[in-house]
Parts: sequence; structure tokens; C-alpha cells
Amino acid sequence: MNNIYIIGVGLIGGSLALDMKSNNAQATLYGIDSNTTHLDEAIELKIIDEKASYDDLKDADLVVLAIPVDKAIAELPKVLDAISDTTLVIDVGSTKLPICNAVEHHEKRRNFLATHPIAGTEFSGPSAAIRDLFQKKTNIICEVEKTTFKLQEKALQLFSDLGMRIRYMNPEAHDKHIAYVSHLSHISSFMLGKTVIEKEKNERDIFDMAGSGFESTVRLAKSSPAMWTPIFKQNKTNVVETLDEYINNLKQFKALMEADDFEEIYNEMENTNHIKDILKGIV
Amino acid sequence: MNNIYIIGVGLIGGSLALDMKSNNAQATLYGIDSNTTHLDEAIELKIIDEKASYDDLKDADLVVLAIPVDKAIAELPKVLDAISDTTLVIDVGSTKLPICNAVEHHEKRRNFLATHPIAGTEFSGPSAAIRDLFQKKTNIICEVEKTTFKLQEKALQLFSDLGMRIRYMNPEAHDKHIAYVSHLSHISSFMLGKTVIEKEKNERDIFDMAGSGFESTVRLAKSSPAMWTPIFKQNKTNVVETLDEYINNLKQFKALMEADDFEEIYNEMENTNHIKDILKGIV
Repeated sequence: MNNIYIIGVGLIGGSLALDMKSNNAQATLYGIDSNTTHLDEAIELKIIDEKASYDDLKDADLVVLAIPVDKAIAELPKVLDAISDTTLVIDVGSTKLPICNAVEHHEKRRNFLATHPIAGTEFSGPSAAIRDLFQKKTNIICEVEKTTFKLQEKALQLFSDLGMRIRYMNPEAHDKHIAYVSHLSHISSFMLGKTVIEKEKNERDIFDMAGSGFESTVRLAKSSPAMWTPIFKQNKTNVVETLDEYINNLKQFKALMEADDFEEIYNEMENTNHIKDILKGIV
Repeated sequence: MNNIYIIGVGLIGGSLALDMKSNNAQATLYGIDSNTTHLDEAIELKIIDEKASYDDLKDADLVVLAIPVDKAIAELPKVLDAISDTTLVIDVGSTKLPICNAVEHHEKRRNFLATHPIAGTEFSGPSAAIRDLFQKKTNIICEVEKTTFKLQEKALQLFSDLGMRIRYMNPEAHDKHIAYVSHLSHISSFMLGKTVIEKEKNERDIFDMAGSGFESTVRLAKSSPAMWTPIFKQNKTNVVETLDEYINNLKQFKALMEADDFEEIYNEMENTNHIKDILKGIV
């Protein structure tokens, strides 16, 4: 790995660049980004060594596509057009079916590996990039069989250097499950923030009363709309399904309260308490 | 402060005991709890010095009532019956109107100060007690004017030793606002956990995909049903109102998705992003 190109030097692309540089001392990290301020910031922060353009991709050993998922499906074909036969291209998007479909018939499909590293924070941009973000995190790989074996090996070495564990899944299953454990969490958090902010318009004091519990449930409401809007758009069907189930559970909880059935409300909470055990191993 | 009695040696009572002991080296910490295992644990963990009973409360300088809010309204009158004229009694419950009403006409009402320290974790019991839990946290005091001035002073010194900042509020306002910034967060978290667990029954792999974002939004679903059921019961009207607004916001978000109005979805998220600034100062 001598020439590593990062397209999108934000939280994920930037964090990958930092770790890849420490794992490959000899490598040169090139950055490509439509946001020139971010590129300058990334050089300033020593996340990348140099700026580059698509014309340079023919010399790339590795290209990481780390841009919003709507941009990704538009750019990936152009990236594949620009690379050499031995270049590995990976994406890191939170939706996998649209990107796999976007290059299904591309002559360089075998150079591409569709991945989703389950890692991040609520912040964005190069300044949000941090080292070891991917340690002990799960990386989901889709349609592995469509990538040439040599490049699969290259990618697996890369992920193991990052400290990631691998799960293989088809894109349909990925997009369905991730709607529950990631996309829905973001919507519940955004809407919780909205509900409280609407109240706060009239009641200035309310946030003096907010504690760490509120901060934790509303943390994801700080996330980037530019990143999340296209994710919800691309995963619309699955996200709407999870929203339906979530709204129904909230309605049922409210109905139990209105019926003063607090015994059942106790049971509801007790039954959900075992999330403790399920979450062990996540953090 | 020589004789401090903690009724309920759990997360809050136990954490208060730990700090009060370090702030009052000469004080003896007595524990009262219907759960004798918890009492033994609390002694083991050096949270309290000795077990005690209501008969001993006549010698108390301070009594902290830190039990579930349904138990609290039943026990507070008995506690006031048992104390001396110079004893300060504080509660720490997450609802304030029911407890204030429960002792409104008690002859020792002036010995009682209704407080709500906005601090805690998702864990419970003596083993969950930690030092400095209240540092820089807000303590809400209700109906301060109903407590004798001397005991107000005593309480304020106590809270300032704990590192807390004080807000004064009437019980109605407290219960209304806290429903938004605390009670609703717990329900949204419990129902998020439930929605995903229901899915997980059929899909074993789903939790391999859960990241820190999910963990953060679902953290409060680990909370104690014995503590939270009576809170929801006592604050039913306010909590149902917040649930209505939350459910409506989720329905509206879902409608925007179904209508493919992703421009408006972007705006919704962007408008809620300033929660960042609002939350500064909380954590």
C-alpha cells in the first residue's frame, strides 16, 4: 500500500487516513474532496499528505470512498473508470444495496468491495477525525464474492490492521437490519430533540433541568443532515417500517398509561431491561 | 451534621452518603432500607456506618429520603412523625407535586425540603453508588418558602458541599418540565430497545451491527422499572402530553419520508442540530 486515496476527508475518511498512515509508514495519503476548505484543514491536521484529483487515481493502490451515500452512488462509477486493474476501491456508506446496484454491471466491479464500518461519532468534518475509531468495531462486508480474491485479501489485511471484526451479509439484509440499530436511533434522537426544543421556546428554564440521561438520548440529534438525509432517502422502505413499529410501541405505552395499567408498564420495562446483556460486547 | 440517616441506600442515597461522609468526617451515616441485602451491601461497601430504624430518627440532624416516589409519599409523613424539631428532611424524587401535597398539612412540614438532584446513571442499588455524582449538577428545590429558614441554610450548605447549583421552581412547573427532559427520554429509550429486541427475536445477527449510537440512545432502557413505573404514574398527565407531542413529531417525520420530501427532512434535522449549543453546559 503505497498510494492511498481518500475521497471525502471527513470524520470517517479522515479517521481511516490517520490509522492507515500509522499502519503503513511508507504510504502517501492523498485527499480528494469537493470542499477545498476541508482539504486544507486535512493537510493542516496531517490527516493527508497531499491533495489529488481523479486523474491521479490510476496510480492508486487503495481508494476509500467516504462521502454521503447519494454522492457515493454518483461518484463510484467514475472512480472505477479512473483506477488501474490492481486498485482496490472500498466505500464506507451506511446503505449498501444502492451502491452495489450502482456498479453491478461496471467492468471494474471486481475492484470494488462494499463495506460499512459500524463506527463514528455525532461530529463531522476533518476536525472530527480521530485515531483508533475502528478498534474492536464491526465492519460489514457485502457481496464479497463479487470482488477479486487478491483484493479481498488486501482489504481483510487492511481491516485487521484497523482492529476491526468482519461480518458478511447481503446488501438487502444489511439495509434492513441497520435501519433498526442505526437509522431509527437517529430519528428517535432527532425527534426527541425537536419535541423538547419546541417546548423550550416557551419555557426558557427547561434545559437547566436536563441531565446526562437526556444528553445521551439526544446525542445523535447533533448529526449531520447532509450525511443522514440521503441515508434515509436510500433506505426509505426499511426506515419507514422501523418507524411504524417504533410509533406503535410508543402508542401502546401511552395507551397503557391512559388506562392506568402500570403493572403492564412495569413488565414492558422489565422485558426491555435485558438489553443490558445484549449490549455487552458492543461498547 | 453528626447523625445522618439515609432511607434507601441505592444509587442516589448511596452516592449522597459517600460524599456526605467525606464532607463531614465526624458524621455517622445510618442506613434504613426495606431491602436488608442492600443494607448489608451498603455496610460492606462502606457507604453507611450502621443500620438503623425509624425509632432512631429522633436523634437525626439530617434524613435523606431516597426511595421510589410511590414509597416516598407513603413514608415521608411517618418520617416527619419520628424526627425532632431541629431535624432536616430532604427527598430526592423525580416528581415533586405529589410529595409536596402528601405533607402539605403535616405539623412538621417546615422540617422538610423538597429537592430533585438532576443526577444519576442507568444503574441501581448500593453497588451503583459513586463519589462526586452531584458535582456541577443542578438541584431543583420546590416550595423553599415552606421550610424553616435555619433548615434552608443547612440544606444549601449541604448542596454547596456536594458541588451542586440550585434552581428554585414550584412543583407544578418542575413536574411539567422534567417530563420533557427526563421522563420522555426514558420512554423513548425503552421503546427503542423494545422495537429492536422484537426484531432481534427473528434476526439473531442484528446486534452485531449495533454501534455506539444505538448504545447511547438505548442506554436508559437499562433503568429500574421499580423506580420508573411510579414516576410515570405520578406524572401521568405531563408524561402523556410529552408522548403525544413526540409521537406526532415522529408521525410527521414518517409522512415526510413517505411523501419523499427529503428537503424538509433535511430542514427538520438542521433545525434540531442547534441542540448542540443548548446542551453545552449540561455535560
